[in-house]
Amino acid sequence: MSSPEKFHGWLGHDATSAQGNLRWEPFTPKPFAETDIDIKVSHCGICGTDIHTLRSGWGPTHYPACVGHEIVGTVVRVGSSASSRHRIGDRVGVGAQALSCQRGDCDECSNGMESYCGKGFVGTYNGQYKDSGYWSMGGYADYVRVPAAFAIKIPDQVKSEDAAPMMCGGITVYAPLIHNGAGPGKTVGIVGLGGLGHFGVLFAKALGCDKVVAISRRRNKEDDTKAMGATDYIATSEDEKWDKKHSRTLDLIISTVSAPDMPLSGYLRLLKTKGQFIQVGAPEDVLPAISAFALIAKGCKIGGSQVGSPKEIEDMLKFAAEKGVKPWVQKIPMKQANKAIVEMEEGKARYRFVLENDEAHARL
Amino acid sequence: MSSPEKFHGWLGHDATSAQGNLRWEPFTPKPFAETDIDIKVSHCGICGTDIHTLRSGWGPTHYPACVGHEIVGTVVRVGSSASSRHRIGDRVGVGAQALSCQRGDCDECSNGMESYCGKGFVGTYNGQYKDSGYWSMGGYADYVRVPAAFAIKIPDQVKSEDAAPMMCGGITVYAPLIHNGAGPGKTVGIVGLGGLGHFGVLFAKALGCDKVVAISRRRNKEDDTKAMGATDYIATSEDEKWDKKHSRTLDLIISTVSAPDMPLSGYLRLLKTKGQFIQVGAPEDVLPAISAFALIAKGCKIGGSQVGSPKEIEDMLKFAAEKGVKPWVQKIPMKQANKAIVEMEEGKARYRFVLENDEAHARL
Repeated sequence: MSSPEKFHGWLGHDATSAQGNLRWEPFTPKPFAETDIDIKVSHCGICGTDIHTLRSGWGPTHYPACVGHEIVGTVVRVGSSASSRHRIGDRVGVGAQALSCQRGDCDECSNGMESYCGKGFVGTYNGQYKDSGYWSMGGYADYVRVPAAFAIKIPDQVKSEDAAPMMCGGITVYAPLIHNGAGPGKTVGIVGLGGLGHFGVLFAKALGCDKVVAISRRRNKEDDTKAMGATDYIATSEDEKWDKKHSRTLDLIISTVSAPDMPLSGYLRLLKTKGQFIQVGAPEDVLPAISAFALIAKGCKIGGSQVGSPKEIEDMLKFAAEKGVKPWVQKIPMKQANKAIVEMEEGKARYRFVLENDEAHARL
Repeated sequence: MSSPEKFHGWLGHDATSAQGNLRWEPFTPKPFAETDIDIKVSHCGICGTDIHTLRSGWGPTHYPACVGHEIVGTVVRVGSSASSRHRIGDRVGVGAQALSCQRGDCDECSNGMESYCGKGFVGTYNGQYKDSGYWSMGGYADYVRVPAAFAIKIPDQVKSEDAAPMMCGGITVYAPLIHNGAGPGKTVGIVGLGGLGHFGVLFAKALGCDKVVAISRRRNKEDDTKAMGATDYIATSEDEKWDKKHSRTLDLIISTVSAPDMPLSGYLRLLKTKGQFIQVGAPEDVLPAISAFALIAKGCKIGGSQVGSPKEIEDMLKFAAEKGVKPWVQKIPMKQANKAIVEMEEGKARYRFVLENDEAHARL
């Protein structure tokens, strides 16, 4: 196995690319460093961030952009400084982060919080490597080249198409569940039942939470989330006085929605004393303003959380393997990426689309 | 010692009372319960909440109102069910809370979080007792009658005029400092340098925090706060690019301000990764809206905190006695209460006004 000089990927050239105008084209990968590996991509999940980025929704994107940061594939080239971590033939995954500063004097990197590194965070796509100035290119592609430190070995028990969406969607909810005490004796709510939210239900259940409450605007996902392990369901636009009725029932809420008009004050009413509301979805606008009393009267907290460190991703994959956590994915041929991003944006994923390169590519 | 049938206090009869129109008048205290004690008031601190309440700022107030919930005095009557907790002659303090449900099936009361009791919280004033329907009357008075469980014995080392403002102002900042890890190795910011803020600086220093940063709009309190133990000072309306310059320097911020236009996004910039911002001041309007990214990118949290439990108040008083924490108070004769609330509202307190009954009253 080896990697070609030019890689190929679905490139977006401007903001309209988010509407299904990606073009399959060759591109030059980043200059190979001895800390890098090349991965022959087998699968890449479609994350909401891909579409925000393609349309420059969170700020100007550097085009051409090749998005995709829920990548799984096989290692086909290993830099000399990366050989202690990966070998050719390993099945590995890459999430939303390709690099941090990794310096000993970095509070974040030296304390297992690489995803919050303020000095050297490089996203897997639309991020810029400081050494080469190269703009990172993601996994809607045949190959990716990434620093070895941020590629994680996939346990044998976890299928590639299941591991792929865990690399971003999974870890984004797993990390705040773990860090905020989800487990036996706790009641957890998951707001928004898309790709992230469905992982929230699956992981909260697997962690042994007493109650796992799925929270969405409408009731149409009730059967699915019950099948995933949810014990209760709240439909905020259909259930009358839902916030009053379920007041003070939850220890922890993970919010995966990114609608700026979310009923935040209502969600806060659901929290018990000292409950926590963790926002992981990122609206393109500010959050709704809330009264300080909503926090003071119950000693509650609103927080945010951003993906997870390589070690946390490794822990999550082990946990998923042990507990048999199986995401609900729909595999879509890589060549149908344009159709897939349009349908993703239309809310049709149940619950994560995963692009798959064909067998001919796998045999190469 | 004993207590009279009628008590006397400074009564507010409508929202204009906040402008210095309180009237010293007799009133009937709550019906005496065997769980109650009567306290002959020696001192009562003036808290911002007194004025919010007198002017119905947080909602309609029940008039006539006698405010004051930073009360210290001598026990002069003890109900038969209160005798295990207090004796006649004890010097005790009462804070913002006079009662909680105290039931074994209350999550809050059975876990030392009485100040968050959702079923039976009765404020020391402008709160209604469920059994008698009586509206509670506070400490701008000669006597108060309160449930014994919420009166705390004052250690001998702490003067009455110093203990009084600790009962609300002190505990309001002490509790979130303790619960959010303030101590050696931590850097703490205190926003707003009024009564609460000055306690924040004093307690953060006494707790051994590495850095105690006083944060105010203007620089006029720098010398005072340095004398209290602050190591640094930020003047947000005078220091250019203060939020950028001090970005990622604080583990914890306690915000005591209640201005709805506070530069909240700037404060959040000051936090380190996983830093926490705890709001204890309660604006009469909503908090400024913030971007979810402000929380997500650093894994930060915004929380609230409300006074503290009787046990926490006891712990604070012991800590203050051990460490010699001494608030900056200005004693004012009880008869000058109207002048004092006006000057308090004008921001003239340096840093807490404490009303004091005269010696003739003390000798009664």
